[in-house]
Amino acid sequence: MKVLAFAGSLRRDSTNKKFAREAVGLLVRHGQASAEFADLRDYPMPLYDGDIERSGIPNSVLALANRVADADALVIATPEYNGSISSVLKNAIDWLSRVKPVPLAGKHVLLLAASPGGWGGIRGLWHSRVPFEALGAHVFPQMMSLPAAGSAFDERGRLTDASTQQLQTLLSAFIGHVGSRVGLRAA
Amino acid sequence: MKVLAFAGSLRRDSTNKKFAREAVGLLVRHGQASAEFADLRDYPMPLYDGDIERSGIPNSVLALANRVADADALVIATPEYNGSISSVLKNAIDWLSRVKPVPLAGKHVLLLAASPGGWGGIRGLWHSRVPFEALGAHVFPQMMSLPAAGSAFDERGRLTDASTQQLQTLLSAFIGHVGSRVGLRAA
Amino acid sequence: MKVLAFAGSLRRDSTNKKFAREAVGLLVRHGQASAEFADLRDYPMPLYDGDIERSGIPNSVLALANRVADADALVIATPEYNGSISSVLKNAIDWLSRVKPVPLAGKHVLLLAASPGGWGGIRGLWHSRVPFEALGAHVFPQMMSLPAAGSAFDERGRLTDASTQQLQTLLSAFIGHVGSRVGLRAA
Amino acid sequence: MKVLAFAGSLRRDSTNKKFAREAVGLLVRHGQASAEFADLRDYPMPLYDGDIERSGIPNSVLALANRVADADALVIATPEYNGSISSVLKNAIDWLSRVKPVPLAGKHVLLLAASPGGWGGIRGLWHSRVPFEALGAHVFPQMMSLPAAGSAFDERGRLTDASTQQLQTLLSAFIGHVGSRVGLRAA
Repeated sequence: MKVLAFAGSLRRDSTNKKFAREAVGLLVRHGQASAEFADLRDYPMPLYDGDIERSGIPNSVLALANRVADADALVIATPEYNGSISSVLKNAIDWLSRVKPVPLAGKHVLLLAASPGGWGGIRGLWHSRVPFEALGAHVFPQMMSLPAAGSAFDERGRLTDASTQQLQTLLSAFIGHVGSRVGLRAA
Repeated sequence: MKVLAFAGSLRRDSTNKKFAREAVGLLVRHGQASAEFADLRDYPMPLYDGDIERSGIPNSVLALANRVADADALVIATPEYNGSISSVLKNAIDWLSRVKPVPLAGKHVLLLAASPGGWGGIRGLWHSRVPFEALGAHVFPQMMSLPAAGSAFDERGRLTDASTQQLQTLLSAFIGHVGSRVGLRAA
Repeated sequence: MKVLAFAGSLRRDSTNKKFAREAVGLLVRHGQASAEFADLRDYPMPLYDGDIERSGIPNSVLALANRVADADALVIATPEYNGSISSVLKNAIDWLSRVKPVPLAGKHVLLLAASPGGWGGIRGLWHSRVPFEALGAHVFPQMMSLPAAGSAFDERGRLTDASTQQLQTLLSAFIGHVGSRVGLRAA
Repeated sequence: MKVLAFAGSLRRDSTNKKFAREAVGLLVRHGQASAEFADLRDYPMPLYDGDIERSGIPNSVLALANRVADADALVIATPEYNGSISSVLKNAIDWLSRVKPVPLAGKHVLLLAASPGGWGGIRGLWHSRVPFEALGAHVFPQMMSLPAAGSAFDERGRLTDASTQQLQTLLSAFIGHVGSRVGLRAA
């Protein structure tokens, strides 16, 4: 099974990038899936603009769409901005939705959120489900929010123990859920 | 009373820009408020990025923030993308939220939506309320969605009669609601 | 595969009951699943009240919980009340959530909505996803809203042709999605 | 100005009832408003059922509708059930929406949430805004969630100091916002 992970943030030192990378590391180390991290900074996109689209969907969008299409499942760690979805994530979704066939349709998606505050981005997680579901993606019901994320990673970008265990349990449940379907599809 | 109107879309021929402009026209023609339209294309913003912010909030954001701060109320016409808020609008909100004091806090906001489809962007409207409310804006409970917007405007960009009446009624209710407060504040 | 269908409405002549029954009929006639309809009127529940719960979860709740637990998937047709979930459906969910293990956890759920109005309950559908997902159910991304439902059923309670086709297509997609997992689980 | 406060819970020992009563106490002690608490247990309502409605809206609903209509503003403390609105509150709203004119239309509403858990009902608060706004109520953007509510009240049902201060600040902002409008209406 192939998992693509990315973060809904552009900032180089983003805790959500660390969170997504940590998920990739756990999946690979436990042999649960082939997993890769994509940095949205490597897929620079303009703000969605129908006039730009008319002269062609940007190559960065097409390149990300290919990686999404190639994956069986997505793990997305995303910040909450103003109680809702991050603009970076929303913009990526909106561009991806213009590629036909829509690469997000039918994908399995696991949402994570790292947040500096105490609520851990719980409102942003729920708000972020909607556009994925509107595009036909299966968003896993369980999600994980990581409060106080500023101090949750050590200098190597590794999560502390308790959070690692929580993430590992969630990833196993997610992969178990997706795996049965993907295996069947492959059979 | 001062109203600032804009659209959550960049496209030059955007029906939501026409919708916002029509609201401005009605307010001015009926002497209900001083009203202006701002085209977000004139305030080009990068996707929100904490690294950019660290070297300074872009001038385009500061300029829009000044116009928002100067207004008593906002009328925003916005498309629905993938069942939720437009990435252009979300990005503008996220940048504006980084200006202190937050110019959206305490503002009165009326949301409109023009949509090519039959549901008129009703899901996008409800999704769009959230970040405004999270920032302390008073979003007017009534909203107006305009389905089949591709044929709703004539070549001068004017709405057909029935929709004009609906918009006028909504604007009057909104201005009446806001006006009492603004008058009081000014007194 | 076993499907349990019910409606988020108590009214005897409810169009949502007709909608749920029509889904059952299609599933059975096409041999896609073993399917049954449950009328919530046969499971009379008090409004959720922690004091009642302390003296025991009502038998009606336990009986419905058993039927839910016994099903692989749920098809729920539900009205929209005031832009959001029906109180009848929310109350059933809240009671079911007090039975351990929670019978809704891990279930596959398809949401339908019949509505007298033109929007077909689209806001109610999206609002209704949330408590199911919070309880760990997999709500199918695609949903079906039936506008103008007052005239959508003939005197035998059968849908007109175009809507039947739309419902059949959705049911096939849903059963196909669930079936692979259930088959695998059974294997 | 008249404020009516109630809780979206029936349980006698409900922390949300204590929270609503504490808001009433603060308003009265500070002379900010005439304020009363209504216990929904005194307005016993059946689950919403169109067949019941056809033979007449229950007297308990009409009595509560009168109290709501008579108030300028509502303060509602409500639990979160399964990530969303409480069934008790939703049922009260659905019944109230059947009384014409709808007593909730145009009312100012402040939402509070007491929760035994760590998130303090934040998802429930946001979910609870929707039906009020759909009915034309002005829900105050700021809300207050009280986590770990089981230990937040002393034996007299009074909040601890820090939470009292937070509630007082919020109530003052709310009353200040509503008061200007109500004063104007009365003039």
